[in-house]
Amino acid sequence: MQGTRVLRRINTAAVLDAVRRGAGGPVRLTELVESTGLTRPTVAQAVEELLDSGWLRQHAAEPSSLGGRPAVRVSLNGRAAPVLGLDVGPHTVTAGVADLAGEQLAVTREPVRRKGAKHLLGVLGAVTERTLAAADVAPADVAMVVVGTPGIVDREKGRVLFAPSIPGWSSIDLTAHLRTRHPCPVEVENDANLAALAVADERTGTLLAVQWGERLGGGVVIDGRLHRGAGEAGEIGFIRPPGHDVRDDTGRGPLERSIGAEAITELARAAGTRKEDAAAVFTAAADGDPTALSVVDQVARIFAEAVAPAVLVLSPHAIVISGGVARAGEVLVAAIRRHLADLTLTPPRVELSELAENTVLTGALRMALDRVWAARLAT
Amino acid sequence: MQGTRVLRRINTAAVLDAVRRGAGGPVRLTELVESTGLTRPTVAQAVEELLDSGWLRQHAAEPSSLGGRPAVRVSLNGRAAPVLGLDVGPHTVTAGVADLAGEQLAVTREPVRRKGAKHLLGVLGAVTERTLAAADVAPADVAMVVVGTPGIVDREKGRVLFAPSIPGWSSIDLTAHLRTRHPCPVEVENDANLAALAVADERTGTLLAVQWGERLGGGVVIDGRLHRGAGEAGEIGFIRPPGHDVRDDTGRGPLERSIGAEAITELARAAGTRKEDAAAVFTAAADGDPTALSVVDQVARIFAEAVAPAVLVLSPHAIVISGGVARAGEVLVAAIRRHLADLTLTPPRVELSELAENTVLTGALRMALDRVWAARLAT
Repeated sequence: MQGTRVLRRINTAAVLDAVRRGAGGPVRLTELVESTGLTRPTVAQAVEELLDSGWLRQHAAEPSSLGGRPAVRVSLNGRAAPVLGLDVGPHTVTAGVADLAGEQLAVTREPVRRKGAKHLLGVLGAVTERTLAAADVAPADVAMVVVGTPGIVDREKGRVLFAPSIPGWSSIDLTAHLRTRHPCPVEVENDANLAALAVADERTGTLLAVQWGERLGGGVVIDGRLHRGAGEAGEIGFIRPPGHDVRDDTGRGPLERSIGAEAITELARAAGTRKEDAAAVFTAAADGDPTALSVVDQVARIFAEAVAPAVLVLSPHAIVISGGVARAGEVLVAAIRRHLADLTLTPPRVELSELAENTVLTGALRMALDRVWAARLAT
Repeated sequence: MQGTRVLRRINTAAVLDAVRRGAGGPVRLTELVESTGLTRPTVAQAVEELLDSGWLRQHAAEPSSLGGRPAVRVSLNGRAAPVLGLDVGPHTVTAGVADLAGEQLAVTREPVRRKGAKHLLGVLGAVTERTLAAADVAPADVAMVVVGTPGIVDREKGRVLFAPSIPGWSSIDLTAHLRTRHPCPVEVENDANLAALAVADERTGTLLAVQWGERLGGGVVIDGRLHRGAGEAGEIGFIRPPGHDVRDDTGRGPLERSIGAEAITELARAAGTRKEDAAAVFTAAADGDPTALSVVDQVARIFAEAVAPAVLVLSPHAIVISGGVARAGEVLVAAIRRHLADLTLTPPRVELSELAENTVLTGALRMALDRVWAARLAT
């Protein structure tokens, strides 16, 4: 009967979930009976199935304090399905391996010294190899790979359609390349989307996550799930702020060109203050330098005016900013809040992400784990 | 055991759903066994439960053609839980009653001749009474009421917070008022949201539904579900187009004031053509009048520039326009498409809604039915 198979899946999933939430240590069947509300024979059947498939491992039996039969204890076998996350950028490649419990076993980061897709693939291969070796995981044992890349991604084909920051990148079949090494599902995703997923963490509600450094991108997460829409939702870098009406051939969007980290330095120079980079502008503003403060206000106003229509339509609970510009701190956030309050009906919270670095990698590992868990629970 | 109760619910829901999909006519148990894949005893148990609760009714047994025992036939008892939908506007009140199968039993519409909340409540009462009488449903038998109203709604309290188009409206406790007549759940919802739900119909994907007449509002529907975000998502009327930087005290938003139906007539007048209303402007444009065409293009450009940032962030599959301005037809839609193609990365489809009128009411009835079904299937 169809019903019992469905029910068995639900029960097995409940047991697996209870072990996962069991804070890492071995748990006894009795505890699983309590935490799931299922009968003991049902729990025993689920545990047996999960031991067979390698997701749980059994611990030495603990003698019962009441002198009864020894209690069976099980814990999650994190090694059952390790996942690989990759963050491929024009300047840096980062690789990470995580176990089923979400613990990062190894993370390696390497600069990219030469331009071009071919060199980048070489770096990607080397970084991946080192990371897997450090985590003691064989390439063929990886259960899922998620790659974050700049540009627009055809998720069905697993290819990059358009990535002006990496010459030749869109001619590479990234999925096919990775699958020759890792015979498992491979997913290619826009890096800003992965960063959004990482920033969203366990938050509910609607979130606009903004990655703001030299590049300016974003992602939308609704109740923990990435919102993609018809194409690449969250592409705030391509918003055209009033007075910046022309696209250039750098492939960068108008808002990115207006208030990306480079542009902020230029705005400061135009205002008559000599700062070597955006960080110096923000430091001066935090110290009360009036010129720097007016530059920050100008940047905040351009940002707020650009995103206000999206805030009115999407009504996010929060805008969370990560990336280099996030180091600007409260001086920028306060100015953005002030301008948004004037331009919207329900101004969202404006916050800085607490994730200092590896945002894209964290998102890639999270997505990979989500996929592996979802596939397991649906089996 | 918890599991069997859950399973029974799933099975009962499957049987109810199979009857609902059975195209209205009575169905035999054998057909339900086939369409659900459940065993005959399971189907029989579910049917008995649904007959007891009044959601199904039994038909005269049909003698089996094989000379066996007569076949039991059941159908949906649409009358088991009729729902009431209300569309309360400053100029018109519309009421409708639908049965469980979604069929509209009666719809009544009445103009509002005097301003003010008190008069409006009187009209609301009268229209509701007439509609229920026409549908032959007693006020106390209504299973769910959904009211659409302009303004910003506190959905938890079921009150209108801000509705400048109806003086005094926000001081009324609409939910309490309606619950004295209908002892059932009452839900108050922004009318543009309900219209969005009606326009979305059975579409999947992400949809920005735009109501465009004298007022300009919208709603976001993602995979058939209303997206509300932190406040009132879809509030495109409040987008501030470049050059329209001041809010006035009418409570209308800047984009609404720039390209609402009244503003279109004014734009045409400013362009030197005398048209009595927006409809006349669109008719002239469709006939090839160059001045009217340039006004339409101007309106389309302001609209496209205003919503482009939201399109980049939300990435809707389609923008669907309903309301009076939708009668402008292809001439407006084509111009909007042209401007959006230039301003966005993945331009959405731009379409006109096929729902001619009663959009808000249709959405109210749909939401009420969704609630009633969801509550039934969760019992």
